[in-house]
Amino acid sequence: MKIEDYTTMSPREVRARIRDGQISGQTSGMCAGYAQANLVVLPASYAYDFLLFSQRNPRSCPLLEVSDTGSRFLKEIADGADIAREIPRYRVFRDGILAGEYTDVSEFWQEDFVSFLIGCSFSFEAELLDARVPVRHIEEGRNVPMYRTNIPCTPAGIFHGSMVVSMRPIPYELVPRAVQVTGAMPRVHGAPIHIGCPEAIGIADISHPDFGDMVTIHAGEVPVFWPCGVTPQNVVMESKPSLAITHAPGHMFITDIRNTELKY
Amino acid sequence: MKIEDYTTMSPREVRARIRDGQISGQTSGMCAGYAQANLVVLPASYAYDFLLFSQRNPRSCPLLEVSDTGSRFLKEIADGADIAREIPRYRVFRDGILAGEYTDVSEFWQEDFVSFLIGCSFSFEAELLDARVPVRHIEEGRNVPMYRTNIPCTPAGIFHGSMVVSMRPIPYELVPRAVQVTGAMPRVHGAPIHIGCPEAIGIADISHPDFGDMVTIHAGEVPVFWPCGVTPQNVVMESKPSLAITHAPGHMFITDIRNTELKY
Repeated sequence: MKIEDYTTMSPREVRARIRDGQISGQTSGMCAGYAQANLVVLPASYAYDFLLFSQRNPRSCPLLEVSDTGSRFLKEIADGADIAREIPRYRVFRDGILAGEYTDVSEFWQEDFVSFLIGCSFSFEAELLDARVPVRHIEEGRNVPMYRTNIPCTPAGIFHGSMVVSMRPIPYELVPRAVQVTGAMPRVHGAPIHIGCPEAIGIADISHPDFGDMVTIHAGEVPVFWPCGVTPQNVVMESKPSLAITHAPGHMFITDIRNTELKY
Repeated sequence: MKIEDYTTMSPREVRARIRDGQISGQTSGMCAGYAQANLVVLPASYAYDFLLFSQRNPRSCPLLEVSDTGSRFLKEIADGADIAREIPRYRVFRDGILAGEYTDVSEFWQEDFVSFLIGCSFSFEAELLDARVPVRHIEEGRNVPMYRTNIPCTPAGIFHGSMVVSMRPIPYELVPRAVQVTGAMPRVHGAPIHIGCPEAIGIADISHPDFGDMVTIHAGEVPVFWPCGVTPQNVVMESKPSLAITHAPGHMFITDIRNTELKY
C-alpha cells in the first residue's frame, strides 16, 4: 500500500493501523494537516535533566507534551494514545548505543518512564506546499535527509551534544518565503537554522545524510537546514543514559492536533 | 527620583542600583526595549514539578531561563547577574503563605535552589506604544492591574491553581491591533487570553485588582486581559511548597535581552 493512501486518513485511524502492525514505514505526508511528533522516553531519574535540556534548546526540542511519570497514555496531543505502540518504528538505546529497532516497545515499558513528544518539521511541510514551495523528499517519496552538525546544544545536567538538522532544497527565489512560512511555526522548529553552506555547520558531504534519504538538489536550488527533532537521539548517543527509547527517524507519532493550531 | 529617569539607562546600570538598594520600586517602563522577567525560586525537590508545570502552561509561564541547581548567577538573559540581589523587591512564601517582602534574599539562599525566569508582559508594552496603542498604567505612573481568574492551569505534580491576568484598557478600534502586536511575542505571554467580559473569567470587581494598582478605563475602551507571570505566585499559594521566593508583582528582573530578540 502506498503512502499516499494515508494522506487523507484521520490520525486515529492511522495510529490504529500502526498499533495493529499494518504500518511500519515512515510517516511523511500522512494525515495531511495534522502535526507529527518526535519521541524520547527516559527513566524518571533522567527526566529533569532532559526537560531542562529541552527548555534550553527550544529550536531543536520544542516540547508538545510531556507525559505523567509512568503513564503510557497521552492526554493533550492525542487523548488516550498508547505511546508504546502507536509509532511505526522505535529505537532502543542502552548506554547511548542503539540496541535495536522495534515496532512495539510495550515489552520494555517501565513504571518510571517519562515520554517527551517534540514538534516535527513535517508539520510545516503542508504550509510550504500551500505556499507553492516545493518539498523534495515528498515529491520523491523518500524520508527527509538529516545531518549531524557542529552546532552545539546548550547542555543541561547529563545531556549535551550537537544539533541534528533536516534539509530541504529550495529554489533561490523561494528561500525568503520558506523562512517566513516556517518562522511562523516555532513549535515545530520554526525558521531555518542555516541557509546555503553545509560546510559552515559541519556537514562534510551533503550527499550522504546521517539519517533519512538523500534527495535531488536541482540547479538553482540552495540547501536549507532546519533544527530537527532527531537531535535528542544524537544527544542520547553522546550522553549515554542507561536506557532511552525514541522513534526511528522519519517514523513519527501522528497527533490529533492540526498544524494550524500550533501557530497559536 | 522618578521612574522616567531610568527609561534610557542600561539594564546593567539599573540592576547595579537595585543591588545597591537605590531602587526598590516597580520597574514598568525602565530600560526601554529590554525584556523584564518574573521570578520563581524553589528547592530542587520541587524543580521538576515546576518545570513541567511551566511546560504545560506556556501562556502564563513562558520560561526565559532556568538556572543550574544552586547557582545564584544567571547565564543566558543577563550573564553573571545575581538573582538574589538584582530584583527590587522579593516575596518569600513558606507553606504557601506570604512570610515577608525583602529587597535582598541572599540571606535565604540555599545550595539546592533553582531559579525560574518567566517572560513578562512589560516586554510588549513598548511594542504597543510604538503601534500607538495606549498603555494606561504607564500613562498614569502606576503598577499594572492584575487579577486572579477562574481559568484553570494544567496541573503538574504538586502544582495546580488558576491563572492570574494583567489588564490594559484598550480603545475598541485598537483591540485588533493590540492582539496582533502581542500575539507576535509568545515568549512574553503573547496574545490576550480574554477580551471584554471580566465576569466570564471570574473577575467580580474590575475596580479592585488582586495585585498592582487600578487604572482608569475611559468610555469607549474595553478591558483586555493577558496571561501574567504572577500566576506562579497564585499557584504557590494554592500548592504550598515548603519554601518559594518570587519577585513582588510589578518589581521585575530586568534582562540584557532586547524585547525584539524574543520574537525569534
